[in-house]
Formats: sequence, structure tokens, C-alpha cells
Amino acid sequence: MIKILVDCFGGDHCPQAPVAGALAALAGNPDLYVLLTGDEEILRKELKGKDYDTSRLEIVHAPEVIGCDEKPTDVVRLKRNSSMMKAIILLRDRDDIAAMVSTGSTGALVTGALVRLGRIPGVIRPAFCPILPSMNGGIVGICDSGANVEVTSAHLRQFAIMASLYMENVYGVNKPRVALLNVGKEAEKGDEIRQEAYRLLQEIEGLNFVGNMESRDLLSGAYDVVVADGFSGNVLVKTTEGTALELLKKLKKEIFSRSLYKLGALLMKRMFADMKEFMNYQNYGGSVLLGTSKVVVKGHGSSNATAVEKCIEQAYKMEVSRLSGKIEAEIARYEHYME
Amino acid sequence: MIKILVDCFGGDHCPQAPVAGALAALAGNPDLYVLLTGDEEILRKELKGKDYDTSRLEIVHAPEVIGCDEKPTDVVRLKRNSSMMKAIILLRDRDDIAAMVSTGSTGALVTGALVRLGRIPGVIRPAFCPILPSMNGGIVGICDSGANVEVTSAHLRQFAIMASLYMENVYGVNKPRVALLNVGKEAEKGDEIRQEAYRLLQEIEGLNFVGNMESRDLLSGAYDVVVADGFSGNVLVKTTEGTALELLKKLKKEIFSRSLYKLGALLMKRMFADMKEFMNYQNYGGSVLLGTSKVVVKGHGSSNATAVEKCIEQAYKMEVSRLSGKIEAEIARYEHYME
Repeated sequence: MIKILVDCFGGDHCPQAPVAGALAALAGNPDLYVLLTGDEEILRKELKGKDYDTSRLEIVHAPEVIGCDEKPTDVVRLKRNSSMMKAIILLRDRDDIAAMVSTGSTGALVTGALVRLGRIPGVIRPAFCPILPSMNGGIVGICDSGANVEVTSAHLRQFAIMASLYMENVYGVNKPRVALLNVGKEAEKGDEIRQEAYRLLQEIEGLNFVGNMESRDLLSGAYDVVVADGFSGNVLVKTTEGTALELLKKLKKEIFSRSLYKLGALLMKRMFADMKEFMNYQNYGGSVLLGTSKVVVKGHGSSNATAVEKCIEQAYKMEVSRLSGKIEAEIARYEHYME
Repeated sequence: MIKILVDCFGGDHCPQAPVAGALAALAGNPDLYVLLTGDEEILRKELKGKDYDTSRLEIVHAPEVIGCDEKPTDVVRLKRNSSMMKAIILLRDRDDIAAMVSTGSTGALVTGALVRLGRIPGVIRPAFCPILPSMNGGIVGICDSGANVEVTSAHLRQFAIMASLYMENVYGVNKPRVALLNVGKEAEKGDEIRQEAYRLLQEIEGLNFVGNMESRDLLSGAYDVVVADGFSGNVLVKTTEGTALELLKKLKKEIFSRSLYKLGALLMKRMFADMKEFMNYQNYGGSVLLGTSKVVVKGHGSSNATAVEKCIEQAYKMEVSRLSGKIEAEIARYEHYME
């Protein structure tokens, strides 16, 4: 049985989305067991009348609520009975629990995971790795996308190793093509950190490093993993999401501006729906935190039930594929190889 | 008479695009005078049979060609007779010439401008400021987008001052809303440089600083200027362009996959053409270099004649509005105010 904690508060559609997502994941995975954290009374009400295997679901009472503008360090220190911190502490203390999923505050989750959970031996800093769809039907992982606004080349090297193993083990990508986000293709582009990282990535035996990537090529399908510092990785991911959303909005506005366009759009209704689904980040799960001693998956604050279900599946696959152990072994092998 | 140099080699469509762009700009501005730099024989051939005011056009012979993989510092040192370096040196040496436009190598242009032209007094580092269309029909300038991969908070402060004056003087934006690119809205987000820059920007009297911007809101129309380091600013601009292009490509592919969609698209032909035009960066001119002692405008390598014409118009407007003098005065005023 794989046990996964689901933080049921903190996101925009709570507790409906986490609860519904958990039930869907339960239905789809017979050896999954979920622990929902949050206010017990509210969760009981939400579960009432729903059909699920009660022997594989448990509620962990955690009544405290995290405010929007609370500092992450305060949350970690003072809100031990919030749905998020309770999950982190349980994850740390109970060997039988494998992972947690949360749609709550990113800052609190990163800080809590770092302070309470700790890292996989050898890992310098955990990093986020969200997934975006690429235009040839594949996907691309971006690591880091916000956990570390400042990095060194040694961090970037580890991000590459962790994200490559993640794409291989969780998504079945064969020999993931790993690129370094930079302002140009040539090896000497970017600052010293990037130039040094380029050299380090070339040296990693077994890593399929394909060179620098310019951000305009992110969705081209030519890359499986993009390695970045958390600041520019964040810009990369959010700009892509933002541009896609704004363009769809504009398209919609234009269509409704003339009857002729509305008629045309009617014929293309299915296509527009497909495009929208294709770009809907809810379909691609969450941003996993790579490098923490146990599996942590961060869902978008606006996650619906499907998105939470996908997050649980990601956590499940990370555990089943024993990703953490592989990351530990690969980093140990590499550090050894460097000596 | 405003005299502007046009580097006719180095871009993808050379010399056709620069020459055609220069002639279009000449036709549109009776007090414009252009100096075309490049191989005289080739340029004469290109001009042959074309209708233009010969008294306002001059060819400056510069036969050397810059290779794709030449290092910027080598170009500046060794290729003094290339079309780009010749333009930079003439711009420096002749008081009657106001500006230059180039679609050649960005690295060589930045290095050449820094080494040969120098900066406006008080400016620490020149920075690029390209323009993107926002979804409400306006535009947004991003400064820096690649001239400085590493910055300090003092650099960011100057980028804000320069770009705000640029948007006001060249595009007539009233009290430009200036934002700092960051990973979240709150003042304490980002690294130390960002946190310090936030404080500095708040202090500038007369600057309409509206706080941090998350990259997903770039096109929302809520901002006129976005201040960034050259690395993440580059990611911001190129990701936007790349996502828009990839989505249009996908849309086209989908449309051609079914007859019904093709029919629908036929009814919406005009709309799609408008959308494409709207997102076509060729319509928004080049990326001006703010802070150099004389006006330098960098056009996209793939610039067509329209794009080059827009670049010349940008250079013209920068000169006519006496932007450099205003930047110098504002930075002097501000440095004084800080003492």
C-alpha cells in the first residue's frame, strides 16, 4: 500500500478539489491509501454521501488556517496544526507514509519541507520541476522554477541530474535531452555561473546534455529537461502560461466581435476545446519538489479535482519508481567520480 | 536634417531589407538623411532603379564581413571596415550624425557601442529596451533584455529611469507605469538585488513605480515598463515571442487537419490575419539601446523592410525628442537628490 497525504486546505477550491481529487485517485489505484489533512468536521461533511473505499482513506484533524500574508518561517514555526504543516510533520515522522500533495502556499511548503523534512543525502538544495506540454505532443520539465532564486553551478548540475531521473522514471522518457536555459546557444553565453554549469553538465557521464537553450525554443519539442536558476526558471514557466492564456483570451474576444467569426468558430468548436485542454496546466499535474528526503508535490493554487488527482499520481509514481533512492545513488556516484 | 546610419549587412535579409526600409523611412520623413554602410557595389546594385531623394542618401563603403561565430571583442578590434563597426565609428566621430540602426550581431553591437561610443554621463550600463504589444492594444517596454546578464540594484534603478523616459518621449505614454520583474508581487520577493531595487524604485521622485510584476502578467496591459536584469528580461521577451509563435503554428496545423476546420478558418481569415499582424514583432520596431552617448537601435536579425523602417523611426524619434539629454538630466537630478 502506498500512503499519500493530501493537504485539503490552502488552495482556491478547498476542500472540494483536494477531496474529489483524492477520491478519484483512490478509485484509480487499488494500492493507494490517502490521508486527508484539515478540519475534520469540514472534511467529514465534504465526504458525506460520496462513494469510496473507506478502508483506504483517513482524516487527520488539523484545524489551523494559514493566512495569505503570513511569512513562511512563521507558518513553519507557529502553525503546526495547519493542514500543511501537520502533513509535513507526519510525512517526516511516519515511515509508512510516502508522500504529500499540497495546493497551499509555495513559500510555506518549501520552507517547511526544508526545515522539517530535510534533503536526500548529497543534495545541496531541493528544486521545483513543473511540466509543460510541448508542441509535438510531448512534455518538458523545468528545474528549478522558483525554490532557489540564487544558485551556483553546482546547484544547476544537481538540478540536471534530478530532473533527468524524474523525467525518465516518472514519465518514461528515454535518455532525456537536457538543456541549460541561457541567452544564446553558444557555450560562452551568460554569466560565469552559466558558463561553468555548461562545462559541468558536459562532464556528467550518462547525462544527455544537449547544450544551451534559448527560451523561445521551450515548446519546440527539442528538449525534455530545461535546467535553470529558480528566478529565470520561474519567469520561463509563468511567461509561457501567461502568454498562452492572454492569447486565448484575445482570440475569444475577437471571435465574439463579429457574427461571421462566431459562425466560423462554431465549426471549429471541437478544435478550440482541444487547444484549450492541451494548454490547460490542470492536465499536467503539479510541480514536484525534487531532492527532499520524501516526496512533495505542489499543485497550482487554482487546482481543480483533476489537477489534484494528477498530483497524487505523480507522487505515487515517484514513490513506486523509487526516485529518491536513484537520485541519491546518482549524486553519490557523480560526486565520487569527480574526486 | 536628422542623419541616421543604417548598417546594411549582418541580418537575415541583407541588404534588401535595410535598403528598402531606409527608402521607406526617407519617403515618410522629409528631414531624414540616411547613410547606408556596407559594400558599395552591392548597395549601388540594390538601389538601382529605385525611386528616392538622392540628395538625402549616401553610401559609406565598408566591405568587411562579420562571420557568425566571431567573438564580439575581435569584431570590434579587427573589423573596423565592416558595415557595423564603420557605422559605430562614424557615429562617434561625426557630430552631424545622430543615430544608427543595425540588424547584425547583438554581441558585437553592444561591445562596439560600449567600447567606441561610450555612455551618457552618469549612466553605469546601457540596456536594451524592446517593445511588446499588450492585450489591451497598448505596448510594454522591457529593460534590460540582454545587454547585461548580471546587474546590481543601482543598474536596475537606472534602467527604470531610462525606460520610463523612453516610453514617455518616444511613445507618448503619460506617466509610464513601471514594474520590477520578480517571482511574486510582495516587496520581499526575489534575491537581495531585487529587494534592494524595490526600495530604490519606490524612492525615485516622479517615477510611477507600481511594484513587482509576475511574468504571467506581462501582456495584461497593466504595465508600461518592466525592469529586469538582462538574463531574465531576455527570458521574458523570448518566451513571449516563442510561445505566441508556437501556438500560432499549432493552430495552423490543427486547422489543416480537418476540412470542417478549414471551412471555419476561411470565415475567420481576416481575424487570423489580424492576430498574426498583432503578434508580429516586425511591426514593433527594434530593441533600442538606452544609455549610449548616441542613439543605437538593434533590429531583429530576421527584420524585413517594415521592421527596419520602424527601427529608423524609433531612432528618429529618440533624436528629435532629445531623449539622451533628458536621461542625462534625470540621472544627474536623481544622483544629486540621493546625496
